[in-house]
Amino acid sequence: MRYFVRYGEIGIKSPKIRRKFEKILMNNIRSELKCSFKNNQGRITLLTKEDDEKVRSTLSRIFGITSYSPIIETKTTKEDITNLIKEIIPKIIEQGKFNPEKDSFAIRCRRVGEHNYSSQEIAAYCGSVVVDLTNAKVNLSNPDFVLNVEVRENKTYMYHEKIRGLGGLPVGSQGKVICLMSGGIDSPVAVYQMLKRGCSVALLHCDNAPYTSGTLDKVIENTRKLQKYSAGSEVELYTIKYGDYLEYIIKEAPPRMTCVLCKSGMYQVADIVAEKIDAHAVVDGSSLGQVASQTLDNIKSSRYYCRLPIFSPLISFDKLEIEAIGQEIGTYETSIIPDGGCSAVPKYPETHSDLKLFRWTSNRINLRQKIEDTAETIEKIEF
Amino acid sequence: MRYFVRYGEIGIKSPKIRRKFEKILMNNIRSELKCSFKNNQGRITLLTKEDDEKVRSTLSRIFGITSYSPIIETKTTKEDITNLIKEIIPKIIEQGKFNPEKDSFAIRCRRVGEHNYSSQEIAAYCGSVVVDLTNAKVNLSNPDFVLNVEVRENKTYMYHEKIRGLGGLPVGSQGKVICLMSGGIDSPVAVYQMLKRGCSVALLHCDNAPYTSGTLDKVIENTRKLQKYSAGSEVELYTIKYGDYLEYIIKEAPPRMTCVLCKSGMYQVADIVAEKIDAHAVVDGSSLGQVASQTLDNIKSSRYYCRLPIFSPLISFDKLEIEAIGQEIGTYETSIIPDGGCSAVPKYPETHSDLKLFRWTSNRINLRQKIEDTAETIEKIEF
Repeated sequence: MRYFVRYGEIGIKSPKIRRKFEKILMNNIRSELKCSFKNNQGRITLLTKEDDEKVRSTLSRIFGITSYSPIIETKTTKEDITNLIKEIIPKIIEQGKFNPEKDSFAIRCRRVGEHNYSSQEIAAYCGSVVVDLTNAKVNLSNPDFVLNVEVRENKTYMYHEKIRGLGGLPVGSQGKVICLMSGGIDSPVAVYQMLKRGCSVALLHCDNAPYTSGTLDKVIENTRKLQKYSAGSEVELYTIKYGDYLEYIIKEAPPRMTCVLCKSGMYQVADIVAEKIDAHAVVDGSSLGQVASQTLDNIKSSRYYCRLPIFSPLISFDKLEIEAIGQEIGTYETSIIPDGGCSAVPKYPETHSDLKLFRWTSNRINLRQKIEDTAETIEKIEF
Repeated sequence: MRYFVRYGEIGIKSPKIRRKFEKILMNNIRSELKCSFKNNQGRITLLTKEDDEKVRSTLSRIFGITSYSPIIETKTTKEDITNLIKEIIPKIIEQGKFNPEKDSFAIRCRRVGEHNYSSQEIAAYCGSVVVDLTNAKVNLSNPDFVLNVEVRENKTYMYHEKIRGLGGLPVGSQGKVICLMSGGIDSPVAVYQMLKRGCSVALLHCDNAPYTSGTLDKVIENTRKLQKYSAGSEVELYTIKYGDYLEYIIKEAPPRMTCVLCKSGMYQVADIVAEKIDAHAVVDGSSLGQVASQTLDNIKSSRYYCRLPIFSPLISFDKLEIEAIGQEIGTYETSIIPDGGCSAVPKYPETHSDLKLFRWTSNRINLRQKIEDTAETIEKIEF
């Protein structure tokens, strides 16, 4: 089978960047499908013997693809074209995708190269072949069924489906980021959003045991699900033993500061790990105002000691929007498995952290040293 | 007229936070409509003599509202309810919103309090009244038309429309942020996204004249459009004379670094201005990989000297998604007015800034002092 694979934003980049992106996109597809490519004037043709269903399920989760179409090809004489139409239209009718008794239709034609007919002529000609064959009604402005005919140099391509892809940029085209990953709903969605814009991702799970339990299993399960959207790039998963650090801040700092110091520590640990694994930004699932800890004041304090940029792709998302994406990509059902929450959360967590007090406290209890020690407990999880 | 006004996420917050948010939401509505409210068990009823069309256009652009419904009320006896149905159904038919010859219908009933009928009984009763009146078919699972009947204590409310609101949180509930605002497509959309999550916004336009021209007019026009989504909170607009700074870096630093130093300066100026105007984060329209300057390496350098958190709500958005929102809110058409671009952009701008070199250069040319001087040129624009 053959498929047209269309990409969007890659097309508007400089020729050099475009070639680089195209190459990454083709490699990503090739990592999941036995296939080869023809790359011609800004559009990729994929050739494969794999099962159509597998191809579709693969292309539908590879970022950078705006749409794709299964195509069938022939030569460019009217006879060849007629024969192909006569071959495919009955199959399409059989598949229930075109009902000539009820559905109107149109031919959309594009033509590149030298031929002894114009685009309009060949469109009208193909239309008459379909009418002869089916007696269906032509409707050019609002057809129920469209047959696309592309005559390009010495080949004619036909397709009737244009299946929407995920858009975005090919994973691996934008460098690596490190994503804070909890067992919750938001962080896997944040990771997905960064994959969408072409980042390779490393996930960092701060394991709060003994203050939490069972979260690592959820994280591993959701990492597997995210890997599906990262064809061609490994989703790396790291864990940090974070319980000691939590115990330390509970003992040394005022209880109301626990959550802000916890979050601050996570950013700083990510910052330290990032350097080791060549990641260039920290990502988290913050959504402004969603919970008590996600106020501007708390965000200001908790991010203060992180040197790398922090991206919060969900910062402006409503909870319902985040949940909808989580359901779409399959992480939601794992995220909502009850895990008892975090027992380190104090009765009255700070909702308006004072930056000066936060900095003073961090210095007083020599937090940086504790964080550097904590970062040493890093472990890569194979899954 | 009366309207039910429904809100989403506010409802899941603690009673104290909820009351605060409700108050802000009502104040925001009141800033645009002469109206009063009844607030009862997590739902607001709005009472107003304003024109229905004005009410709808207002509620449809106030963040924090998930949906609203024009309602009509009566007492709770079957006679009262019958009379009201007989009064409103013909009007609804006349408005073309229910065609009994074609459309099936259902009654959805909720009841709170003590009455001499159950919810099911009153739903069935109302259904029979509508059937007697119109002969329409009942379809409980997939009706074309729904009449909602709510019996609550000593009042019955009816409505048949549920108009979707923008969601998000009420503007003013989350504190103030300062947003870098250019004449382009992305930044107004980024501002809109932060308004959506309840921030008050101040906009900072760095005027690159003489390297650009005409951008301030576009910024003012788009600020007016954003003000529509900020009922109850003034969208403040500030400008900075940025041309001198650009001239300085063009003279003192390698040409390829111009764009990164320009962006870095903007973040730092925003950081300085933020303190004066009590803003707690910087916002910009960055979308990863969208243009050459938005690589991870460039973002890392340009954000290095900004102390406040930087939110880029569009970081994971595709260009088409950003444009779609810009069109929806009306800023797009202003953004695309040609303004000649920025003549300070070098022939080969850096796409992979080296942080060490960036810091070394910033220090060598004493950039911080220049930025502090630049921040002094701030001016508030009234529009």
